[in-house]
Amino acid sequence: MVRVGLPDSIDPKLYSLFPPEAEIVPIPDTLDHPIEIDIWIPPLFPKPAQSIFPHLKGLRVAQGLWAGVDWLLALVPPEVIVCDAQGAHTPATAEWAITAILGALKYLPFYFDVQRSGKWSRRFEAPAIFNKAHNTVAPSYPPTLVEDLSGKRVLIVGYGAIGEGIEKRLLPFEVEIVRVARTARQEPQVHAITELHSLLPQADVIVLIVPLTQETTGMFGPKEFALLKQGALLVNAARGPVVDTNSLVEALQAGRIRAAIDVTDPEPLPEGHPLWSAPNLLLTPHVAGSTERFMPRALQVAADQVRRFIAGEPLANVVSNGY
Amino acid sequence: MVRVGLPDSIDPKLYSLFPPEAEIVPIPDTLDHPIEIDIWIPPLFPKPAQSIFPHLKGLRVAQGLWAGVDWLLALVPPEVIVCDAQGAHTPATAEWAITAILGALKYLPFYFDVQRSGKWSRRFEAPAIFNKAHNTVAPSYPPTLVEDLSGKRVLIVGYGAIGEGIEKRLLPFEVEIVRVARTARQEPQVHAITELHSLLPQADVIVLIVPLTQETTGMFGPKEFALLKQGALLVNAARGPVVDTNSLVEALQAGRIRAAIDVTDPEPLPEGHPLWSAPNLLLTPHVAGSTERFMPRALQVAADQVRRFIAGEPLANVVSNGY
Repeated sequence: MVRVGLPDSIDPKLYSLFPPEAEIVPIPDTLDHPIEIDIWIPPLFPKPAQSIFPHLKGLRVAQGLWAGVDWLLALVPPEVIVCDAQGAHTPATAEWAITAILGALKYLPFYFDVQRSGKWSRRFEAPAIFNKAHNTVAPSYPPTLVEDLSGKRVLIVGYGAIGEGIEKRLLPFEVEIVRVARTARQEPQVHAITELHSLLPQADVIVLIVPLTQETTGMFGPKEFALLKQGALLVNAARGPVVDTNSLVEALQAGRIRAAIDVTDPEPLPEGHPLWSAPNLLLTPHVAGSTERFMPRALQVAADQVRRFIAGEPLANVVSNGY
Repeated sequence: MVRVGLPDSIDPKLYSLFPPEAEIVPIPDTLDHPIEIDIWIPPLFPKPAQSIFPHLKGLRVAQGLWAGVDWLLALVPPEVIVCDAQGAHTPATAEWAITAILGALKYLPFYFDVQRSGKWSRRFEAPAIFNKAHNTVAPSYPPTLVEDLSGKRVLIVGYGAIGEGIEKRLLPFEVEIVRVARTARQEPQVHAITELHSLLPQADVIVLIVPLTQETTGMFGPKEFALLKQGALLVNAARGPVVDTNSLVEALQAGRIRAAIDVTDPEPLPEGHPLWSAPNLLLTPHVAGSTERFMPRALQVAADQVRRFIAGEPLANVVSNGY
């Protein structure tokens, strides 16, 4: 039998996803004695995973349930194979990215305020938002305003499964997509990350969906913010540390850009942090991937991996530093 | 020369969209003497249009700038041909509908509250929203939550240009689309409105995008609300009076359904109206079509119409009561 350790909070009904040759070992977050397992599906949060890990013996594969396994890579020694569950999270993360883009362009934060205030006539304040964001004057007609996504140029930085999923959902919106990844390739055309600086000034929307690695940590800093078009929308669907938080706060407070982020650095974002009250920011507290079908989808990826392991097939989703 | 009357607030730079054989006659909202025009492009709002209309002589065509010309139809006599500018507004209205669906399913109103409160840990309140909406218990893992659009069944009621535009943008989200229009047809399959009651109980999301006619006024009332699945999302991208406001308020206050609306009945919605504070409602104050490219797009449709009129060709976008 292959022993598969997983969080004891997972609904036992989902064990049936795994092949019969797998022995499921539910592990409490409070584990305090050594256990032997071959494959480990760690808890969703780093702290319990860090406290469980030293008690695991004979571990060969760590199969994360998230698309981003940066902290898991840092936790286990190099001889343990780390795998992510990227495909499982493409729908949820791509959906959040489209929600963030549209929510910002349609001024949803402003209209929620209008709804709360109960004053219909406040809709005439919308052109002032446009004028301020773009440092220009909105058309006098119509006298109310939201912005078009149609016609915008969207830069997708990171072109893995989720980047492709975002592109697929954006295409019917009549946008121009520009793709960036670590290395250039063709069909479709993907620009190398070395070209990023020449591409930023033309982008209306920039979506970050790179894994967190040494290379991507802080990749969006003062230089990159300075290159953005006035009123551009930066969407961080990746990890908080990909963006330099101080530069983000400064660019927002100066009214230079707009942003929509699901991740922050640090995380959790402490009370009183200036990001909470920065203008033109749509912030969700790292919830993009957390949908009602998260666990069945992610466990299916893990179960498929266990089947491959038992059959002696090459594992899928093995993490490299590529993006 | 064919005389084309239009609001004097339209930027004269846009006159160049019209053919040279057209004489452009800018009309102030305060017009108080008779003028001769062949084609009238009325103001965006009924009140100035109603005050201008009695002064127009020789009018043959009224070309509205909106997709919905219900009040224009009511204003002019039957011998004046009324045309809408539907195609011009497909992108903006379809974009709003997708924004509304995603904004509701991702609990954006809740997360804006979290952002305002500056408390990251409030994300753990999200499963309670799910439980209340669906009258069930959310999965225990993940401990935070947004909802998937993927896998949902979306009913599009009204299958004209905008209905098709909404479908086109929804398809990559891995949803099941069910189409309803006045009369059934095939390829793609469209159900007749007579089947609506049998389709409502299976729908997760219902998008209303019918024109306002005698038939559609109040088409969504107590009977229709009663047929909706617990927690279903009703999106009104059509006109306020298509939905019975009292039934909507009751269904929301009872926690039976969720809604996202850009239109209300009455409109403007008066201060203190119970819709403003109804739970699980995302309300924007009739701004879906009002994008920065609204006027160039709509005037292009009007200019094409003027060219057809001058050439003696059949007019496009002539309004019937079909949907």
